[in-house]
Amino acid sequence: MKSELNRQWILAKRPEGLFSEDHFTYQEAIIRPLQDEQFLVEVFYLSLDPTQRMWAQTDTYLPAVKIGDVMRSLGMGVVTKSRNPAFREGAIVQGMTGWQSHVITDGRGFSQVPDNSGLPLAAYMGPLGMTGITAYFGLLDIGRPSKGETLIVSAAAGAVGSIACQIGKIKGMNVVGLAGSDAKCNWLTKELGIDAAVNYRDANAWQQLQEACPEGVDVVFENVGGKMLDMALGLINVGARVALCGYISGYAKEQNPGSHNLPMLISKRASIQGFLVLDYVHKSRDAISDLGKWMMDGRVKYRMDIETGFKDLPVTINKLFSGENNGKLLMQINTPPE
Amino acid sequence: MKSELNRQWILAKRPEGLFSEDHFTYQEAIIRPLQDEQFLVEVFYLSLDPTQRMWAQTDTYLPAVKIGDVMRSLGMGVVTKSRNPAFREGAIVQGMTGWQSHVITDGRGFSQVPDNSGLPLAAYMGPLGMTGITAYFGLLDIGRPSKGETLIVSAAAGAVGSIACQIGKIKGMNVVGLAGSDAKCNWLTKELGIDAAVNYRDANAWQQLQEACPEGVDVVFENVGGKMLDMALGLINVGARVALCGYISGYAKEQNPGSHNLPMLISKRASIQGFLVLDYVHKSRDAISDLGKWMMDGRVKYRMDIETGFKDLPVTINKLFSGENNGKLLMQINTPPE
Repeated sequence: MKSELNRQWILAKRPEGLFSEDHFTYQEAIIRPLQDEQFLVEVFYLSLDPTQRMWAQTDTYLPAVKIGDVMRSLGMGVVTKSRNPAFREGAIVQGMTGWQSHVITDGRGFSQVPDNSGLPLAAYMGPLGMTGITAYFGLLDIGRPSKGETLIVSAAAGAVGSIACQIGKIKGMNVVGLAGSDAKCNWLTKELGIDAAVNYRDANAWQQLQEACPEGVDVVFENVGGKMLDMALGLINVGARVALCGYISGYAKEQNPGSHNLPMLISKRASIQGFLVLDYVHKSRDAISDLGKWMMDGRVKYRMDIETGFKDLPVTINKLFSGENNGKLLMQINTPPE
Repeated sequence: MKSELNRQWILAKRPEGLFSEDHFTYQEAIIRPLQDEQFLVEVFYLSLDPTQRMWAQTDTYLPAVKIGDVMRSLGMGVVTKSRNPAFREGAIVQGMTGWQSHVITDGRGFSQVPDNSGLPLAAYMGPLGMTGITAYFGLLDIGRPSKGETLIVSAAAGAVGSIACQIGKIKGMNVVGLAGSDAKCNWLTKELGIDAAVNYRDANAWQQLQEACPEGVDVVFENVGGKMLDMALGLINVGARVALCGYISGYAKEQNPGSHNLPMLISKRASIQGFLVLDYVHKSRDAISDLGKWMMDGRVKYRMDIETGFKDLPVTINKLFSGENNGKLLMQINTPPE
């Protein structure tokens, strides 16, 4: 029976530039019987995130994915068989499923998703998942915003950036987004209600950014690095905080463009602080509670870019680096429950 | 009389690359009579510091020096005439004298140098002046070192760097210096007693640095930026602190080399914090007291590179950027009192 085969993408080669099919091997494996304490998850969503390139490349905050192992990723699925009383059949669970259609686990690193929140399951892969928690603690804990301050967010229309923008507005900031198309900029200002959005591909982007920040910049929520970071640093006020969430411009090239404006940190007594959502998992309940409330109130909106076509996964993930995705990028590999 | 002429270097043009004589005009001006509250200082030492290039180029934490004004710098001199009872004739004073042999001031921004400390006056232009205070607060306040941690200092044989190295040793750290010649490295390890020094011009500098930091790096005292910073970032541990004191590699070129290793800040949850000694002036008494004690004990050593030849000043200052100076660079323009 087809449903008894586990469809998997195995890491075959470490990427240097973008991902391609060369870096992975597709295989179908027999699903073994369960042992005590184990359960079987039929995965329906995989989370595609820029950090996955780092995981495939080298040891970082997690060991590199081993060549020959299933590619690592967060995922969500439904328990279809269980010999673990804590995870019953029919439960919706989240965890490091990897790029595969089925996973057998003893539950370590997995958690159950509430099915009575009134919010779609996909939200738990985005604004109510690691994505939202990253934006929440990155902005509030590292950025330490005050009412009336100015915030610049790069990759502002992205999954994390768009949530950071909206939390900035909720905290009373002047919020300015950097994004890669006019459509994204329109969405940011018209749908999400941020104060200004600049298409960084525009020839006069720097001038637009200056005009959007007449009182300088106090907090930078940085996802891209390179030129984006340099522009933001060019406008910082004394005591500014850069919350360094990601450095997409540096992941997809062997030689990243670098940052040329660090001397500004000296004259402005400003800081760049890197952070990882992993360090905030123990406090995630606070974030999810606030974010859920804001979503119900309509103060935090989001959009998901849900792709199908598991066979194209090694190519689809590159939408994150080309900026083609609109919101949180998911791969749907089975139909989620109603 | 010759002594009644004030010899001055006037900023004529903003530098883009290194300083040259083109950027300044030499002039001799009549010294005007004193008004009430004013006193006349005959300057004997001028402090030459990398930050002076910034002051000449652009507005930073201080407004740019105006074209047509005397070039700004710290200096030390003796009061030769006074109509200000707080600054008597014969007093030794420090302040923003500028590049000139005489200055008339009402005393704002000037302070008196103790003449009974047993230490040479030049020490107050170096380890007991802004130089030492910069190293002290940069390392202790921004770097927050703990015993047993590893410290990397770039421009380690420089005025600030050499003091930072020695404070690191006093705090029980494994101290590794980066410097630009074998002679400087020998001085650092043999005279100052730091654990290792790497000549960054060596082909295998990166390998040497790795070997000197077997347990990674916890604190970076950064004076240079660019490749130095990238090497240090390549070795940082989780939670590392970079105290960004200077970015010499970026001052002397229109396009600085940039930093390409900032993504390390994310996986290591590490920070770069810029700082200015100006923010610590109100606490300088603590620093001077500790530093003076350590100098008397022989635990903080220093060397001064005291140049003469006021007419060569616009060229002499470039020793700071070529790395030719040995220790704190001063220009002596008159004979200091015994």
